[in-house]
Amino acid sequence: MKELERLFFPKTVALVGASPDGAKLGGIVLRNLLSLKGRVFPVNPRYDEILGLHSFPSAGSLPEPVDLSIIMRPAAEVPGILAELRGKTHFALIVSAGFAETGAAGLQSEIVRIASEAGVRLVGPNCLGVYNPFHRLDTMFLPHESMKRPKRGNVAVVSQSGAMMICLLDAIRVANTGVSRAVNYGNAADLDAPEVYEYLADDDGTAVVVSYLESVSDGRRFLEAARFLSRRKPLLVLKAGKGEGGSAAAFSHTGRLAGNYGVFRSLLAHYGIREVAGFDELLDAAKAVSYQRPAPGTRVCIITNGGGSGVLAADECARHGLQLAGLPEDVRQALKNTFPSFYTVANPVDLTGQVRDDDYREALFALRDHFDGFVVIALTGVAGVTLRLGDHLREFRETVRKPLVVHIAQGGVAPRLIPLVEKAGIPVYPSPERAVRGLAALLESEGNHG
Amino acid sequence: MKELERLFFPKTVALVGASPDGAKLGGIVLRNLLSLKGRVFPVNPRYDEILGLHSFPSAGSLPEPVDLSIIMRPAAEVPGILAELRGKTHFALIVSAGFAETGAAGLQSEIVRIASEAGVRLVGPNCLGVYNPFHRLDTMFLPHESMKRPKRGNVAVVSQSGAMMICLLDAIRVANTGVSRAVNYGNAADLDAPEVYEYLADDDGTAVVVSYLESVSDGRRFLEAARFLSRRKPLLVLKAGKGEGGSAAAFSHTGRLAGNYGVFRSLLAHYGIREVAGFDELLDAAKAVSYQRPAPGTRVCIITNGGGSGVLAADECARHGLQLAGLPEDVRQALKNTFPSFYTVANPVDLTGQVRDDDYREALFALRDHFDGFVVIALTGVAGVTLRLGDHLREFRETVRKPLVVHIAQGGVAPRLIPLVEKAGIPVYPSPERAVRGLAALLESEGNHG
Repeated sequence: MKELERLFFPKTVALVGASPDGAKLGGIVLRNLLSLKGRVFPVNPRYDEILGLHSFPSAGSLPEPVDLSIIMRPAAEVPGILAELRGKTHFALIVSAGFAETGAAGLQSEIVRIASEAGVRLVGPNCLGVYNPFHRLDTMFLPHESMKRPKRGNVAVVSQSGAMMICLLDAIRVANTGVSRAVNYGNAADLDAPEVYEYLADDDGTAVVVSYLESVSDGRRFLEAARFLSRRKPLLVLKAGKGEGGSAAAFSHTGRLAGNYGVFRSLLAHYGIREVAGFDELLDAAKAVSYQRPAPGTRVCIITNGGGSGVLAADECARHGLQLAGLPEDVRQALKNTFPSFYTVANPVDLTGQVRDDDYREALFALRDHFDGFVVIALTGVAGVTLRLGDHLREFRETVRKPLVVHIAQGGVAPRLIPLVEKAGIPVYPSPERAVRGLAALLESEGNHG
Repeated sequence: MKELERLFFPKTVALVGASPDGAKLGGIVLRNLLSLKGRVFPVNPRYDEILGLHSFPSAGSLPEPVDLSIIMRPAAEVPGILAELRGKTHFALIVSAGFAETGAAGLQSEIVRIASEAGVRLVGPNCLGVYNPFHRLDTMFLPHESMKRPKRGNVAVVSQSGAMMICLLDAIRVANTGVSRAVNYGNAADLDAPEVYEYLADDDGTAVVVSYLESVSDGRRFLEAARFLSRRKPLLVLKAGKGEGGSAAAFSHTGRLAGNYGVFRSLLAHYGIREVAGFDELLDAAKAVSYQRPAPGTRVCIITNGGGSGVLAADECARHGLQLAGLPEDVRQALKNTFPSFYTVANPVDLTGQVRDDDYREALFALRDHFDGFVVIALTGVAGVTLRLGDHLREFRETVRKPLVVHIAQGGVAPRLIPLVEKAGIPVYPSPERAVRGLAALLESEGNHG
């Protein structure tokens, strides 16, 4: 068994700092753990029993060695707790803050030393820990009422930042895709992104990995692991802490140096690892790769009923190295003969505000063999766009397995059309630019070797 | 009276191509015109009366000269209609497509010549026309059921593209700001952006102008008018059709050459006109300037309860030339003494997941005099963020009139907190990067002389 299997699928979990009070962090996490597919051991000397579970007075008094211990006690108590956990746990996940990120580098070195001597693997400190809906494992100290969890799916999240893990999980939930595993490793005193990448490369439940990071401790190790993973499944990396202000902020966040971004960036490119430029772009790309598999090619066709939206999509294609190739002359003539004279039969194809939804189908199938990916733009305020467009898009996606993304603007049938299209495995975006960003993650263009 | 006052506040409007059928474009526009603060003359030879209004058989048979005639007949009929309108209308707004944008440049030249000889000013062709909620003027051929209109407000929209006008109006509606005037001038055979800019510069109802364009016919005229306007109120310009593919798309969209974007861009900068990079950024900037007035300075303070969100905001500041200056030492010490030791008192100020909402107030007021603008980030999944934060932000905004933008992540009290904060005149954004883009539009940094 891979070592990280015990972190993501623990049979036994201890919670040091468990509380019966649902308003306290140790109470929130205990409640979340109650649905674990495994046994839970609360640790708190003030209680004999918490929420119906026997409570143990100390980490040292656990009745058997557990796979995972979660530590939710003030930083100063952590060294003592780790010493007690010798022989009692495989992983110790330290939620507590107050280590290197606040300047207490000495305290962090101390817990690393103690854990190493005790043979305990560390996650954190200063982290939210692990989420695995397939094992009903959830160490995040946020109640379900205030943070809805995403459903089960195939996207893994690896985040140095807890806030970003929360935001990514929420975005995945809203995008109607689902999560396989998620981990926030915080200060990375021991467990770091490379080891998680290696695990996920072989994890059959994970099809796509989305990773937020601010710093790496061993650049070569990171790049090797990222390349290993990205050769097996799409890996999207967002590196924050880019500029001077940003890297100072990253340092005070997790206590690690962010390094020179320019060097890091060119190394990522050299290793063929796909980097995204910012958080919004990470979400757009993650949505695309969770719906569809990447495919080779850079030739894009845009089919729109709004000229301006088509122009913006064309501009965004240029930014991502995607080509708006011209239409083959015979297809162009055939479409010109089919369509009203005021439609523009070029790339973008502009079906104008007087479009009927069958026109989209006509254009898509006529052009299916001549492009590598398609952007469909539907401004739904006009009468000719109905729910039938959803059927046409599904039919195209089912018969032509090429990357296809859609921008649907608010209005008209949009609220009913969007879920219909997404159910057919086609990601829908709220702007032309964001739709193209999604497509860029699905096509292998210059600088996108994912 | 300014000439364009007759376009935005017409006392009399003729609709050539009016229809009783609410499914036809001429029927939709007639219905929208029924609430006009003015008189409406339908023109259609097949009816004596439409929707209770007397219908005239031809443009030439209008009983009196009108301020505005809207033409919704096929392109081939337009020259004849314009000839009939001699002496009968001040403006002719040609909704019909099928002119230069589809290659029919000759037909477009013809209508320009006829209109010029007849002393008729043209809007369009190939456009949606005008929206002025203060005059209940609405020439857009989209029914209210499929396109909700924004409320009255202080943002004007000037768009070459009809689709973009719709998207901008919808975004303004969703952002809960409102519109003063909007115009889509399409192929710009006569009326073009510069003339509208000059009108809006003096229009007391308009505080901010958002403009989407793909091409300009007279670069010097455009730049002079844009500078004139932007010295009086914020003008945000999005130029689409940037790359080769994009400018070809722009050409087939409105039949005008998009020109060299690099040259255009440096001219904008030289003239001190604020350009935004894309559609999403235009929306973010427009939201900010519709809520708050721009102010001088580039020193930004970020106050967050999520470290990673703070780092991403810091990165985005760097992209916009905004500085994350350090905290004055005495203030830093005072805050360190106030806050728990695991908070990070730097810039960003990281109040961590254990924040209480009073901490935001504490930090904001301690730092009020030391920065030009503020970004507050609240991840609302944690227990310490409540609706009280809304009160604190309102109090800060009311007493310290400096630019303040907020990123609130979904979860917890977010759905109730967001409207509370926006009601206090503080724009809320769904990501740290977008919040900073909003702030960048409010601060006058290098390259932002708006």
